[in-house]
Amino acid sequence: MKVGFIGLGHMGAGMAANLLRANHDVAVYNRTRAKADALVALGATTAASIAEVARADVVISMLANDASVEAVVGGEQGVVSNLAPGAVHISSSTISVALSEKLAAAHHDAGQLFVAAPVFGRPDVAAAGKLFIIAAGAPDSIAIVQPLFDAIGQRTFIVSETPKVANLVKLSGNFLIASVIESLGEAMALVSKGGVDRHQYLDILTSTLFNAPIYKTYGTLIADGKFEPAGFAAPLGQKDIRLTLAAAEDLRVPLPLASLLRDRFLTLLAHGGDTLDWSAIGQLAAMDAGATEEWYRSKEPAPSPTH
Amino acid sequence: MKVGFIGLGHMGAGMAANLLRANHDVAVYNRTRAKADALVALGATTAASIAEVARADVVISMLANDASVEAVVGGEQGVVSNLAPGAVHISSSTISVALSEKLAAAHHDAGQLFVAAPVFGRPDVAAAGKLFIIAAGAPDSIAIVQPLFDAIGQRTFIVSETPKVANLVKLSGNFLIASVIESLGEAMALVSKGGVDRHQYLDILTSTLFNAPIYKTYGTLIADGKFEPAGFAAPLGQKDIRLTLAAAEDLRVPLPLASLLRDRFLTLLAHGGDTLDWSAIGQLAAMDAGATEEWYRSKEPAPSPTH
Amino acid sequence: MKVGFIGLGHMGAGMAANLLRANHDVAVYNRTRAKADALVALGATTAASIAEVARADVVISMLANDASVEAVVGGEQGVVSNLAPGAVHISSSTISVALSEKLAAAHHDAGQLFVAAPVFGRPDVAAAGKLFIIAAGAPDSIAIVQPLFDAIGQRTFIVSETPKVANLVKLSGNFLIASVIESLGEAMALVSKGGVDRHQYLDILTSTLFNAPIYKTYGTLIADGKFEPAGFAAPLGQKDIRLTLAAAEDLRVPLPLASLLRDRFLTLLAHGGDTLDWSAIGQLAAMDAGATEEWYRSKEPAPSPTH
Amino acid sequence: MKVGFIGLGHMGAGMAANLLRANHDVAVYNRTRAKADALVALGATTAASIAEVARADVVISMLANDASVEAVVGGEQGVVSNLAPGAVHISSSTISVALSEKLAAAHHDAGQLFVAAPVFGRPDVAAAGKLFIIAAGAPDSIAIVQPLFDAIGQRTFIVSETPKVANLVKLSGNFLIASVIESLGEAMALVSKGGVDRHQYLDILTSTLFNAPIYKTYGTLIADGKFEPAGFAAPLGQKDIRLTLAAAEDLRVPLPLASLLRDRFLTLLAHGGDTLDWSAIGQLAAMDAGATEEWYRSKEPAPSPTH
Repeated sequence: MKVGFIGLGHMGAGMAANLLRANHDVAVYNRTRAKADALVALGATTAASIAEVARADVVISMLANDASVEAVVGGEQGVVSNLAPGAVHISSSTISVALSEKLAAAHHDAGQLFVAAPVFGRPDVAAAGKLFIIAAGAPDSIAIVQPLFDAIGQRTFIVSETPKVANLVKLSGNFLIASVIESLGEAMALVSKGGVDRHQYLDILTSTLFNAPIYKTYGTLIADGKFEPAGFAAPLGQKDIRLTLAAAEDLRVPLPLASLLRDRFLTLLAHGGDTLDWSAIGQLAAMDAGATEEWYRSKEPAPSPTH
Repeated sequence: MKVGFIGLGHMGAGMAANLLRANHDVAVYNRTRAKADALVALGATTAASIAEVARADVVISMLANDASVEAVVGGEQGVVSNLAPGAVHISSSTISVALSEKLAAAHHDAGQLFVAAPVFGRPDVAAAGKLFIIAAGAPDSIAIVQPLFDAIGQRTFIVSETPKVANLVKLSGNFLIASVIESLGEAMALVSKGGVDRHQYLDILTSTLFNAPIYKTYGTLIADGKFEPAGFAAPLGQKDIRLTLAAAEDLRVPLPLASLLRDRFLTLLAHGGDTLDWSAIGQLAAMDAGATEEWYRSKEPAPSPTH
Repeated sequence: MKVGFIGLGHMGAGMAANLLRANHDVAVYNRTRAKADALVALGATTAASIAEVARADVVISMLANDASVEAVVGGEQGVVSNLAPGAVHISSSTISVALSEKLAAAHHDAGQLFVAAPVFGRPDVAAAGKLFIIAAGAPDSIAIVQPLFDAIGQRTFIVSETPKVANLVKLSGNFLIASVIESLGEAMALVSKGGVDRHQYLDILTSTLFNAPIYKTYGTLIADGKFEPAGFAAPLGQKDIRLTLAAAEDLRVPLPLASLLRDRFLTLLAHGGDTLDWSAIGQLAAMDAGATEEWYRSKEPAPSPTH
Repeated sequence: MKVGFIGLGHMGAGMAANLLRANHDVAVYNRTRAKADALVALGATTAASIAEVARADVVISMLANDASVEAVVGGEQGVVSNLAPGAVHISSSTISVALSEKLAAAHHDAGQLFVAAPVFGRPDVAAAGKLFIIAAGAPDSIAIVQPLFDAIGQRTFIVSETPKVANLVKLSGNFLIASVIESLGEAMALVSKGGVDRHQYLDILTSTLFNAPIYKTYGTLIADGKFEPAGFAAPLGQKDIRLTLAAAEDLRVPLPLASLLRDRFLTLLAHGGDTLDWSAIGQLAAMDAGATEEWYRSKEPAPSPTH
């Protein structure tokens, strides 16, 4: 299949490589051209513009946020204006439910197909072609692109015929991870102020009831108090909770735990946490308890972003 | 070793049986004698009173709550008055940190030894001798009873020389489980109101990031909306969150997620949830969202317990 | 002064009338012309379009929400395109901080002046010319319009030279009122389940520590459980809390009480509360406690707005 | 009437003085005798023991907390053992609902009468005889002591025939005050980070919608950031919220705002806030927002009270 790929970040680069390995004909586009070089070595061609990369059977976009996606989709040089009727746009970015709905409408009006297909998995999983794909869209559209999903992932979950529903599922997954971070943060604050070593405590948890990688991964970060360099930066975590709450507001679903997470992220960012891993919210409970050295004591309070 | 065992509930019965299988000399005591019969068949003797069962090298108590433990420990016929100097009391019940501290002091004053050793694992795990034991106490005391731990569990974690610390760790574990329930409840309320099937959603979660038995177990209960019969009843869950918050208050550790759980349990109990499994708090988010049939609609509101 | 007035709702009608009484030359515009008749009797002229009403020394807009304001401000027929250089736009609507910032920029680019001047007071206060005006803008601009403020209000508070700051203060005021509602709702749920009559309780509060009209007004609504007809409808309350949280997010200020209020409003709206007064969130605590007849029991759950 | 008065703190001293001014025959008892001198000058006699002061028609106790009340009530030398059958004990202390219930039962068993009568008002109000009295008890009992209430207060509210209900009302009042503090703290954090002067903001609030002394009093403390010396110390505030939550738990009433206040007080106490006024929780929102100088930066974290 002739595939155009937009967005060669940590995730996109691995995904595009696996499409090439599955012998698809892949053209890549990225704002910074250097990132395309490794893929060219694997057989990719490079496109000089969004318009050019959009002339394909399927375009896949894998970008950081709503603004980045809107920037490549709209306008005369954008995906919608240049994708052929009947061709498919797969949006794999973690974006808002509202934007996904807008994209579906725009492609529909242009006689094109649209599939939302965010993924679960970190960059190493993307590189290994072992992602989990959460897909939603018209069954015919998904049938067309299933071979691509098979190239980049180990399993595809089709959750709805309405694309935005896949985005909702993806956001809810990040909410659940952040909930694990918060719960571990509170539990560790409690037991460590009570005299228990945090690493031993984590060993107990992950040896018994919580033997999932996610508890191991985030528990270690919190026990170590080591939040740099960021695997997934705090502002991205804050964005995903914001999008979760926005989707929940549209659906009129109160989510008190998500509200708590929102406040945690704002506290973190208000104290200069922008460069930290999102798991740094897991240290706020200990700080409230006066049970840890505040990492921000040595820093100046962050300037307000609007002053 | 000559062991006295108090409390032959679902957990205690399995633990006592494994002590017998390891060839310890076990006398058992239970308020309802019938429960002792199966153990007698395995070689146990029965004691007619607490005082009698306490005349042993080691007494193990495994009871439902603080009140039950206080009832067997104090008074002329209680454990403290009848245990020999130098003998050990192992408290495996999930009790308050404050009561554990009182027990440690009482045994110390009587020249006896005290080890707190709550366990992780459900009745089937206890029957299989595969419990995880969270132990705290003086190293000498723990050394004496380690053979007993080896008989009932697969691994012992020694967390402190101060007994009450083991109780704190146990309570924190139940807090973490309740947090999983709440987070699943919110996520399921959100995606199901958004049009996703709850069972498919749970399959996605447990196939990907949350492949731990705890997510499978509790997620299924919430997706099914089936909370009876109770595996662990709501009032016990409410009690454990109350004890967690009480311990946190003494240590001055604010726990906003535990506070949320507290309010969830009270809402559940206020609507007649006493006989439900504690995972029923996982349906409250959906109810707040108007996204599920309220299970309590057909019931009268529960009468206030004090009026 | 030659004044154009846009928005003759309950608030705007009273404000425009008082400008006429102070002998200003007022042209009015409203989507539904009938509302202008009473003002014409007081000496107003009617404008056939936004463009026409904008040809004045000062334009005042008093509309329901961001969307309404954006609809009259932009486009070729809008306020910005038709207001003369050096003329002033006073925005008295309760709008988002972000929109206020956009308006300020648009007017600045067009060589016009902009003052944000939301007000405190209900329709009867507006009719009596006794509003409190929260104003922000360049001192020169405010000096120009001060005579108009004197005509509609009893006092003007100038809080900043940056217009959007006045909108922030207005939103924070509505947050504080909603906080009073929530706190009264919780206190009444508690004491009424404990056996105290809610009206007697309110009499105690307002006779002692809480002798402010706001406690009397909202406490009576909650004690009566009478939320229709709405003085200020729940969706407007929900909007204001949403805008408060949005402003707080931009400033990185976590507001846990505002988060709680957000969840309360969503619960209310999820159960068909759109037509109720916003004080109906004050009955949710009693419902969670099983201490009141649920008003929504007889209703079908509200359909999700997006399905 | 022959009155015995126990507890000559800031509140009790004023109350006892007003009983003397109303020509009652008052014997006083206090742990520190010096406090009785001023009252002796007004005509009081001093009692050498609780037993002695309890030999009266009516005994009034006005003490700091549950423990102090239990210490004077029980035992052979306590109030219950020494009060005559048919005589009345008025408990004016802010105590738990549970203790009030126990006191009622103990007096009932001893053939004595019991009235709970906590008060609203600060020491200056007590000195002026202008307290508000929240009374509950059997109508006959209250009729007996009404002349005493008239001597110390400006108005008596009789809320129930069950004494503990008066304690519930009193606790709920302190919860409402703490709610005002929290809401002001959040609003001030928001607007001050947005550029508004806190004192001007408070002036706006108290000139408009929130013209109650309680907003003026607590708003000034928060705007000044001046929490020492404490008018009502943080540990007392924390205690009252704890007792409110305990009463709510018994009645199964979830109170999310009270839960938030609980966490705020624990955060304050965890950072050395024991000597501060309880309104210091009103600065925590600004601290979370990085918008104020942390008062505790210069202090060592408070040691855990149990380690």
